[in-house]
Amino acid sequence: MWSNAKDRALRDRAAQVIPGGMYGHQSTVLMPEGFPQFFTRSDGTRITDADGNTYIDFMCAYGPNLLGYQHPRVMAAIERQQALSDTSTGPSPLIVDLAEALVGMISHADWAMFCKNGSDATTMALMTARAYRGKRKVLVATGAYHGSLPWSTPRPGGVVAEDRAHLIYYTYNDPQALADAVKQAGDDLAGIFATPFRHDTFHDQTLPDAEYARAARRLADEHDALLVVDDVRAGFRMSRDCSWETIGVRPDLSAWGKVLGNGQPISALLGNDRAREAAANIFVTGSYWFSAVPMAAALETLRIVRETDYLEHMQIIGELFRSALTGQATGYGFTLRHTGPETLPMVLFEEDPDFRLGYAFCAAAMKRGVYLSPYHNMFINAAMTEADIAETLEATGAAFEEIKQNRDTLQPSQVLMALMEA
Amino acid sequence: MWSNAKDRALRDRAAQVIPGGMYGHQSTVLMPEGFPQFFTRSDGTRITDADGNTYIDFMCAYGPNLLGYQHPRVMAAIERQQALSDTSTGPSPLIVDLAEALVGMISHADWAMFCKNGSDATTMALMTARAYRGKRKVLVATGAYHGSLPWSTPRPGGVVAEDRAHLIYYTYNDPQALADAVKQAGDDLAGIFATPFRHDTFHDQTLPDAEYARAARRLADEHDALLVVDDVRAGFRMSRDCSWETIGVRPDLSAWGKVLGNGQPISALLGNDRAREAAANIFVTGSYWFSAVPMAAALETLRIVRETDYLEHMQIIGELFRSALTGQATGYGFTLRHTGPETLPMVLFEEDPDFRLGYAFCAAAMKRGVYLSPYHNMFINAAMTEADIAETLEATGAAFEEIKQNRDTLQPSQVLMALMEA
Repeated sequence: MWSNAKDRALRDRAAQVIPGGMYGHQSTVLMPEGFPQFFTRSDGTRITDADGNTYIDFMCAYGPNLLGYQHPRVMAAIERQQALSDTSTGPSPLIVDLAEALVGMISHADWAMFCKNGSDATTMALMTARAYRGKRKVLVATGAYHGSLPWSTPRPGGVVAEDRAHLIYYTYNDPQALADAVKQAGDDLAGIFATPFRHDTFHDQTLPDAEYARAARRLADEHDALLVVDDVRAGFRMSRDCSWETIGVRPDLSAWGKVLGNGQPISALLGNDRAREAAANIFVTGSYWFSAVPMAAALETLRIVRETDYLEHMQIIGELFRSALTGQATGYGFTLRHTGPETLPMVLFEEDPDFRLGYAFCAAAMKRGVYLSPYHNMFINAAMTEADIAETLEATGAAFEEIKQNRDTLQPSQVLMALMEA
Repeated sequence: MWSNAKDRALRDRAAQVIPGGMYGHQSTVLMPEGFPQFFTRSDGTRITDADGNTYIDFMCAYGPNLLGYQHPRVMAAIERQQALSDTSTGPSPLIVDLAEALVGMISHADWAMFCKNGSDATTMALMTARAYRGKRKVLVATGAYHGSLPWSTPRPGGVVAEDRAHLIYYTYNDPQALADAVKQAGDDLAGIFATPFRHDTFHDQTLPDAEYARAARRLADEHDALLVVDDVRAGFRMSRDCSWETIGVRPDLSAWGKVLGNGQPISALLGNDRAREAAANIFVTGSYWFSAVPMAAALETLRIVRETDYLEHMQIIGELFRSALTGQATGYGFTLRHTGPETLPMVLFEEDPDFRLGYAFCAAAMKRGVYLSPYHNMFINAAMTEADIAETLEATGAAFEEIKQNRDTLQPSQVLMALMEA
């Protein structure tokens, strides 16, 4: 019997010692009522909350879980390196091995720099683009998330206008909007940022239009600016290469994170020779950027990425999830919009402008052991099996039945409505 | 016999796949010729480089090594938590335990938020100060290091003027300079930043003047702004509390990192109730900020901080190092300026304006098994014993003898000279 008594007690304590009770993307403040905030176990495809309820986890730590939690080969690499050295007075030789491994795998990359947050990698890309020719303007798509530092955080608190003084916004997938933004930058264009596909929170996802991507490449070249693909969220879930390699467009820089060490804290900026000198001229660092254990985990993760069918397996599982869930919804009288790559699905309900159906559906699935998000793209991991999807469908079938019964009494999330009005 | 053949081979490979061959504070580009770049082992007080040379390490990973590398109690906590959960879809209950532990130990703190880099914590402090009353101006001491994001990185590459549009600089320890800067901020003062003592690279360190610290507190109060102590570098090496507690001044916010998990990647912003709402109104997050293993390591580190004499022991060892090294130098005809708290010593040579003595001394000590810095403050750790200091003094005695013999032929570091002229 599902209960959240311990989770509620922990929330009461957290409210005393953490501002707002929790912060950041893992706060459940926007999730449906009753979603667990605290987890005690993570294993394979499953997470267990503080009350002992176990879920099939379609969030995968918001990305990092690529191969399954506690993957035995990655854990063995972690333990081996932990016995030798981790955070020390200099990097281990693994930093060279890891840079070589990435340069060998990512077609556009001639070099790598490692850091901790996705925001570190995107900010290093921003700085490198500006250092490249001393120009300042950077183009980003409206609504795109490139991290939570002042230049890109989605909320206004603590941000001053100057933090974004030289950003110009364009509409994703719109070559004309991009050309207009380039024109606006004049002779001051430093770089163009793009996510590999449009994966904005609360929105249907859109795959990249090849014409738009080629226009971004061409405009960057024409203006001697750098093209940046932010692969922090999608990396290694669309390709074993940079995600835009699937549409034949190579950036100068790409930002990576999340999956690199299958959950170990490591992110990276990769670049080509054109951007090398600029990257060498920025001063960026962090206390734990040279730690060896995350690099050992990343080397093993990359080996598995190269040597196994993890990607094709995730694509099969993701496609099964998509087709089965969409079909199941139809049977209960609902229409789903299941968008984006099959390995990074966004699932929204048709005719659900205030998300009340999505919220009620995810809450009902959660209480039956399946952790889904009603507003953020989800993540498939390589440990998922057809049996996991079958078990998921049992829960989602019951959840569709429940919201079909309750449909007329459902209310929208008040927290969500307050956010949307703000 | 000391050799660096493997290190040189690794550097050659690194030059191909890492911009400039290495980056950040752990690059040896500014260190004396021959300093090892790559390390394979870290244990207790010692580090071993890629060629198998072992050193008594006075850099302590530039701070994180507080208790000794591979501390058995911390490693046991890491292993226990690693078997359960680390980076997952939500934090573990340990985040609440850890916030409670810090609130219980740090007098000014009513709450905590966790992150990865020191720069994350200082930037969260900057954003919180601005979110507090919607004001913008932030005072920082000239030359102080608060991280490597564009608003504070010490080098100009990739930085635009707007990144620092609302920063006002003042001279550390100068109450009048602080008052002038406050005046300059007018009615737009958001916050005042201070390191607990002056610990700028290449400079003698200066302990905080109590009048200056009290002026900072008073001016912040008078202008309804927040006072921030950046304890990332000095935390838990001056006190078991915020470092300014030693002079009786409590900030609204303090930034922590490095030592918190004895090398595990975790940093934190702590604050009082006055700053709570502002902190809840900034959106900051990171892929690995909620990972449980670093929090388990931090909880164990804090237990050791509370329950052992680690601090008094480090102070005794640091004072022994200071008095013995200074006296030894005198015997060889050199005068040292050994400044700062005994647990965070900066050692510079008198009459050494281009650092040639310091560089040659550190190079000679390094080849005899002692890793010192000629331009950055060093760090004592709690695993160091009197025997370590005795062994250190054998190496430094021979190093003083060597530079006394070579004194007339020493040359300054060309890389350093180029930096200083730039």
